Amino acid sequence: MTTFVALDTVDVRFPTSRTLDGSDAMNPDPDYSAAYATLRTDASDGLSGHGFVFTIGRGNDVQVAAIEALAPYVVGLDAEEVLDDLGGFWKRLVHDSQLRWLGPEKGVMHMAVGAVINALWDLKAKRAGQPLWRVLASLAPHEIVDLVDFRYLTDALTPDEALEILEKAVPGRAQREAELVRDGYPAYTTTPGWLGYDDAKLERLCREAVEAGFGQIKLKVGADRDEDVRRLALARSVVGPDVAIAVDANQRWEVAEAVSWMEALRPFDVAWIEEPTSPDDILGHAAIARGVSPIPVATGEHVANRVLFKQFLQADALQVMQIDASRVAGVNENVANLLLAAKFGVPVCPHAGGVGLCETVQHLSMFDYVAVSGTRESRVIEYVDHLHEHFVTPVDVRSGVYHAPTAAGSGAEMLADSLATYRYHRDA
Amino acid sequence: MTTFVALDTVDVRFPTSRTLDGSDAMNPDPDYSAAYATLRTDASDGLSGHGFVFTIGRGNDVQVAAIEALAPYVVGLDAEEVLDDLGGFWKRLVHDSQLRWLGPEKGVMHMAVGAVINALWDLKAKRAGQPLWRVLASLAPHEIVDLVDFRYLTDALTPDEALEILEKAVPGRAQREAELVRDGYPAYTTTPGWLGYDDAKLERLCREAVEAGFGQIKLKVGADRDEDVRRLALARSVVGPDVAIAVDANQRWEVAEAVSWMEALRPFDVAWIEEPTSPDDILGHAAIARGVSPIPVATGEHVANRVLFKQFLQADALQVMQIDASRVAGVNENVANLLLAAKFGVPVCPHAGGVGLCETVQHLSMFDYVAVSGTRESRVIEYVDHLHEHFVTPVDVRSGVYHAPTAAGSGAEMLADSLATYRYHRDA
Repeated sequence: MTTFVALDTVDVRFPTSRTLDGSDAMNPDPDYSAAYATLRTDASDGLSGHGFVFTIGRGNDVQVAAIEALAPYVVGLDAEEVLDDLGGFWKRLVHDSQLRWLGPEKGVMHMAVGAVINALWDLKAKRAGQPLWRVLASLAPHEIVDLVDFRYLTDALTPDEALEILEKAVPGRAQREAELVRDGYPAYTTTPGWLGYDDAKLERLCREAVEAGFGQIKLKVGADRDEDVRRLALARSVVGPDVAIAVDANQRWEVAEAVSWMEALRPFDVAWIEEPTSPDDILGHAAIARGVSPIPVATGEHVANRVLFKQFLQADALQVMQIDASRVAGVNENVANLLLAAKFGVPVCPHAGGVGLCETVQHLSMFDYVAVSGTRESRVIEYVDHLHEHFVTPVDVRSGVYHAPTAAGSGAEMLADSLATYRYHRDA
Repeated sequence: MTTFVALDTVDVRFPTSRTLDGSDAMNPDPDYSAAYATLRTDASDGLSGHGFVFTIGRGNDVQVAAIEALAPYVVGLDAEEVLDDLGGFWKRLVHDSQLRWLGPEKGVMHMAVGAVINALWDLKAKRAGQPLWRVLASLAPHEIVDLVDFRYLTDALTPDEALEILEKAVPGRAQREAELVRDGYPAYTTTPGWLGYDDAKLERLCREAVEAGFGQIKLKVGADRDEDVRRLALARSVVGPDVAIAVDANQRWEVAEAVSWMEALRPFDVAWIEEPTSPDDILGHAAIARGVSPIPVATGEHVANRVLFKQFLQADALQVMQIDASRVAGVNENVANLLLAAKFGVPVCPHAGGVGLCETVQHLSMFDYVAVSGTRESRVIEYVDHLHEHFVTPVDVRSGVYHAPTAAGSGAEMLADSLATYRYHRDA
């Protein structure tokens, strides 16, 4: 019998605000951080499970405290039993009546659950000697259904409907897996678009993005309308008509403001408008979607759980779903989100960047392609070229595509040296 | 000049699970707790500001850590400057770009902001020598508007509309204040209705509620349909036809289940169905409201912020709004919620009970009556007779009404003895 013996945490912070990497209209000076968790067992295999919550600096200590509060829920348990029923364990953690009060199912405590769940998946994949995407894509449809908590979803998606979606995808799995390994999964880059960059840097990075083979870039907007028009015109002139440009307002607008602001940006053939307003405002997004049509509305990196995603889909409030590996309660809840998107026929284009979000979320899109939606059509995974050097198995993005990871695990494990170097001390 | 010199915290937990006080279909064994904050200044007046987040046990330490993370945002500041512009200070705290990532505007970090904001209001009222409700109801309409952050609200409520609502209420303020002081504000009691109580206790408590003058009681439902029918029939037979009975499912149901379950309870003249499903499911509540009409749907104690409340109102998804003193970011956000309710003509019947929720939320309803909606029609404040003895100025509920507090402050201050006795130690 293998037992979980420790859930260790580290408060990791990178001083990214010094270079304005990651600066946008809502987040002028982020210090990309991770509340990092390592789950250890007493097995002699030396394997550990790694997970984290991405934050942007202050408050990362609170996120760490929330993960630590979950240690009593996992330490001492039989590892085989937990890893064999991650759907059941997810429900036990998320629906613990006392912890649940702190959300419910949102914010610091929910994301902490996500870090623990993701660490369990990392360990499960390592024990299987497979990358996470392949572990997920090898499960039988009914096993995938068992991962999902359908509580609060059944008016939009029932277990039977989920099973039907998954079974439909079974015949093509092997062929799509081969295509994925051969061709990778399309990426887009946000590297050129941060608000804090000057024109010369914007221009240079746009050119480099095209040269690197990306078919889509993304620009931050929302601080100054005239500046947005100017920067978007500049970017369009550099990348030409054939590279897609998405824009991202990072929640800066009121509903009416979003519609009128987007009128000014409409001439530049915008691929989507991302986070036009509050990520809680489903009805607001629905109104914006009607107002800016046919430009698709994208959101998700701050959408707290599957219940909110369900409604975004029911209300036709998003046309691009941007799941995030560390915002919701881990892999299981993102499997629910992928199934919801498949049910409604909406493409999933994950949010990534930050710390380790590219490394982890790529597995979910690849699983989706092989075993859920069965398509890469209109789908791209965000890519930002920050901080990958701190990971044991960094992403392999070349020629504008994510190449499918082959290493065992979820991609979440950071280098011990990086953890030691960037461990945050309050008085540092 | 007066300066904030400390934000002290205490992890307070009462072992209420031993008696099943507070037990419901979702929360079988709560330990009513408070992440408690005391804001101190260097003034010689000896006054301090008190605020808290109510939780139900495990995780209260995480909530305390979140409040502690806010100390650098307030300690060292000029108290007069902050207290004179609480609307501005609210925005600075809530929209701090790095902390905001942890919500945004929801869960542990948002509630921590609420505790600090509420502590500031407690101090402001004590310095004024007035109960909080009177401090708020004495502000000019434009000063009340300045307390509110209209970000993400303007598609439903603009500052001008809020001003108009408030100005309309000015002429009747003095008369309503006199009526409030004379007659109090109607209360209803949840004391009889906890799921963990046996029939004899339920019957006795129902009888006592009627004898005590309450015009409404509330029963917990949602664990077992036949049991609910039986208990509701029993309660109805005890209280007679003239006492209202609300029921509360504490989020236990799916959308379709809520509608069918309520069909079984319909014969008992239900005053409202509370929390039928996920507090994030606006569209689900709207469907339930259509399905159970004319029974009103009530929710709010777990509604994370004003953006969600806005949508509940826009979608006619609730007919009774249940604000909570410690769920959102404090007094300022609840002023926004009251204004939204007034705009949509929906009654506010606050959630209370827990630890100190009655003591604090009564001020908001009384302010609403005097200066916002101008009516007590169809409005009641929840009352539960737990734990009031731990507060410096406990509520005065007699003959089924909350008598208006006269003591200076917000009601949040706990007795030093109680803080010391129920301070939680991890190894206790």
